[in-house]
Amino acid sequence: MELSCYFPVWDQLTQDQQAQLTGAAVCRKAKKDTLLHSGSADCLGLLMVESGQLRAYILSDEGREITIYRLLERDICLLSASCMMKGARFDVAVEAEKDSSLWIIPSEAYRQVAARSAPLANYTNELMAGRFSDVMWLMEQVLWKGMDQRLAAFLLEEAALEGTDTLRITHEKTGSHMGTAREVVTRMLRYFQSEGLVSLKRGRIELTDLPGLQALAGQ
Amino acid sequence: MELSCYFPVWDQLTQDQQAQLTGAAVCRKAKKDTLLHSGSADCLGLLMVESGQLRAYILSDEGREITIYRLLERDICLLSASCMMKGARFDVAVEAEKDSSLWIIPSEAYRQVAARSAPLANYTNELMAGRFSDVMWLMEQVLWKGMDQRLAAFLLEEAALEGTDTLRITHEKTGSHMGTAREVVTRMLRYFQSEGLVSLKRGRIELTDLPGLQALAGQ
Repeated sequence: MELSCYFPVWDQLTQDQQAQLTGAAVCRKAKKDTLLHSGSADCLGLLMVESGQLRAYILSDEGREITIYRLLERDICLLSASCMMKGARFDVAVEAEKDSSLWIIPSEAYRQVAARSAPLANYTNELMAGRFSDVMWLMEQVLWKGMDQRLAAFLLEEAALEGTDTLRITHEKTGSHMGTAREVVTRMLRYFQSEGLVSLKRGRIELTDLPGLQALAGQ
Repeated sequence: MELSCYFPVWDQLTQDQQAQLTGAAVCRKAKKDTLLHSGSADCLGLLMVESGQLRAYILSDEGREITIYRLLERDICLLSASCMMKGARFDVAVEAEKDSSLWIIPSEAYRQVAARSAPLANYTNELMAGRFSDVMWLMEQVLWKGMDQRLAAFLLEEAALEGTDTLRITHEKTGSHMGTAREVVTRMLRYFQSEGLVSLKRGRIELTDLPGLQALAGQ
């Protein structure tokens, strides 16, 4: 494992700082559907994805979910270490969406190095700004875009992530990604089917008109 | 003006760094309704409120608005300097909501000092984490709360900010704060009036049952 792959500012850290981060990092395997981090009371640390796929999401009091971003190979999750930041109150949960292999740097170890290293602190800032931008984008989607546009965009994103036009995903799970109820997803998918955009099979959604979905998603 | 009031880490900066920030800071007066910053193409700098009130909001393609946070005396606006951060793409606008007096530190000057000062970079991080938390909170409201709860919370917030139970605000403007259409606000306010929560007068909304509004807002 090379932590340097995750941190473009690695060469600007002192040898001591590099050793402190490397020494603190622990490896963890997580099976699909493992809950890794749960809300702001939890303080797991910085998560670095070596392989697999994670999902960060928020949860309503009533148990509804919405996915706020996905983490793929080489991505870093900062919100699972948000306890190290004053002023941060993120009730974000993180779960493994596929079998994953991770590196974790505990929050306190990371905070100590960032407290002395301006390059690392500024890089942390960049990471956070990137996630913050993702969430702002998502809020604009939720506020201003119709459910049809959002569902088309979600199906296309899934197809790209999975590398197939035949998605094995339930309507329930799709609703959890999008922050809406299963019934809403089912109704919209049936409408998509009537328009020839998808074909619905038991436990599968086949994307039959990619250009049509792209046009609907505004891509 | 004392920049030190805005930065709790001021004493951890070198005299050179303090002088660089102080030398770069410019004073600006802004009349009510002045647009100060507009989207990610703009790069005004760090905004510090000496007096008055600012509003940060996002704008849809169709011209709808939603307020993401307010800035009061002693608050710092970071998103108006987001051009200094890689990975940040915030289409946030900032306007003066009251006649305001501001200090502005241009983005490049701030970036230069933060590049060499771990304390300032970490404090920047804290500021961003705080705003990020605000936006996550707002997204949860938009996703999971009913318009009645959100309107009750908005009216109570306005009353607290203005120090009065008689609000001089149009339904149109209320909609722009909440990311919804004027008609939706009007319909909900009429329902509130029928429940005895408010009394609607020409150009005014009188809050007549504060405990009732608090209960509705879940406070």
